[in-house]
Amino acid sequence: MSGATGTIHGVGLGPGDPDLMSLRAHRLVTNARHVAYFRKEGRAGRARGMVEGMLAPDAVEFAMEYPVTTEIPVSHPEYNATLSAFYTDCTDHLRKLADSGEDVVVLCEGDPFFYGSFMHLYTRLKDAVPVLVVPATTGMSAAWTATGRPITWGDDVLSVLMATLPEADLVRHMQAADALVVMKIGRNIDKLRRALRAAGKYDAAWLVEYAAMEGQTVQKLSDTEGRVTPYFSIIVVHGNGRRP
Amino acid sequence: MSGATGTIHGVGLGPGDPDLMSLRAHRLVTNARHVAYFRKEGRAGRARGMVEGMLAPDAVEFAMEYPVTTEIPVSHPEYNATLSAFYTDCTDHLRKLADSGEDVVVLCEGDPFFYGSFMHLYTRLKDAVPVLVVPATTGMSAAWTATGRPITWGDDVLSVLMATLPEADLVRHMQAADALVVMKIGRNIDKLRRALRAAGKYDAAWLVEYAAMEGQTVQKLSDTEGRVTPYFSIIVVHGNGRRP
Ligand SMILES: C[S@@+](CC[C@H](N)C(=O)[O-])C[C@H]1O[C@@H](n2cnc3c(N)ncnc32)[C@H](O)[C@@H]1O
Ligand SMILES: C[S@@+](CC[C@H](N)C(=O)[O-])C[C@H]1O[C@@H](n2cnc3c(N)ncnc32)[C@H](O)[C@@H]1O
Repeated sequence: MSGATGTIHGVGLGPGDPDLMSLRAHRLVTNARHVAYFRKEGRAGRARGMVEGMLAPDAVEFAMEYPVTTEIPVSHPEYNATLSAFYTDCTDHLRKLADSGEDVVVLCEGDPFFYGSFMHLYTRLKDAVPVLVVPATTGMSAAWTATGRPITWGDDVLSVLMATLPEADLVRHMQAADALVVMKIGRNIDKLRRALRAAGKYDAAWLVEYAAMEGQTVQKLSDTEGRVTPYFSIIVVHGNGRRP
Repeated sequence: MSGATGTIHGVGLGPGDPDLMSLRAHRLVTNARHVAYFRKEGRAGRARGMVEGMLAPDAVEFAMEYPVTTEIPVSHPEYNATLSAFYTDCTDHLRKLADSGEDVVVLCEGDPFFYGSFMHLYTRLKDAVPVLVVPATTGMSAAWTATGRPITWGDDVLSVLMATLPEADLVRHMQAADALVVMKIGRNIDKLRRALRAAGKYDAAWLVEYAAMEGQTVQKLSDTEGRVTPYFSIIVVHGNGRRP
């Protein structure tokens, strides 16, 4: 290695199907000597799975395993402290690699700067070492494409909501917007159904699971009562704006 | 040609830089026998420009030239009628190609189903011939990536607004959301500045011109008083949600 500092690349891989990766992302991934990615303990890691068969045989992998946080409620200060320490540990390692002249490709699901975990590394690294980000197709683009209907027309307002919001906030935002995307659904699905009903949009809502991934499903939300949705689930309500 | 009906592909090319095209989009474009794209009369066409040098030498091009509509105000019924007739004409041609067994690649800026012109062809074609859509990186993803700051954290609400909305609506939506993207700016820039001021977000707003295109600029909106913005301009206000 020369004395030059390496670059950390936050590489958006897109929604899932490797065929939707950008030419730039594909080139960075296939040429990478160091590859880092988040995963849950004991899991293969979705981002890592997306590049299966693409990595160089001698690529060095760095799996960043989330500390088990389900025992601590999100609202507890210790939750934040634990995660913060974890991100700092990851950052230290990446920074050492960059300082020793190595480039690192960090694999990111969807677009890195759109509710992505990479953002937590980014803010900790950006003033210390060169960091470049490759934007990508989001999970929501894959989700509305899967429904076979455009998401927004004319001057429709699109609001993107996290299902983790309080119910009253969800209702208010759902009422105000023309088109909706709801992410991070998980255990909030019942609250979400109530909020969509209160906003008069339940019957217009679609549930897309595993958009552009193996096992993709597209259903009217109202046809999925009682269903437990996987992590990769998005709810879509299409806009109906002006169209010639 | 066999008797089988051809497929119309609405292919998202991403924000501008050809390197951000997906592998699938690149393959469809380079293999296409028929390529269609919108453009303004007498202009080269931005989508066509993005694939310069990529098309097969014998690819047949179909330029769909917008009728001159600036003489008719958008609110006038004739505006809609003129555009509607134009889209129907385009559709007739594409449908004839598909009926004769030819596949056609329609070049789309950004993601086809996100405020895209292709949607007007799609709704007219989808029940008549096979239509497939390739999602892509949006202009807004390129814009927030260009600012060097993530757009949304934690449970931030992101609202996407068209600058063509009435001023009071803009203010209301700007106040309600945490993060903002404003598109279709053009002659609405002064109204937009007033609305952002009224919502208390003017100083947090960034103007990105030509995101991921030649001539990209990133500026604080407040540093651009009096500036005439090009068609490819996006305003971004970042969210500041919870982060460990
Ligand atoms: C932490 S956010 C990451 C978003 C990602 N950066 C993007 O651009 O799509 C995770 C949430 O994104 C949504 N998501 C992302 N990709 C998805 C896909 N392919 N199918 C369904 N949902 C997806 C799910 O709602 C999930 O809870
Ligand atoms: C008709 S909409 C098409 C949006 C497109 N389908 C997408 O996914 O980004 C056109 C508006 O998109 C925005 N836009 C799209 N690409 C852009 C880029 N690369 N740079 C700046 N603005 C862009 C501009 O605000 C423009 O007025």
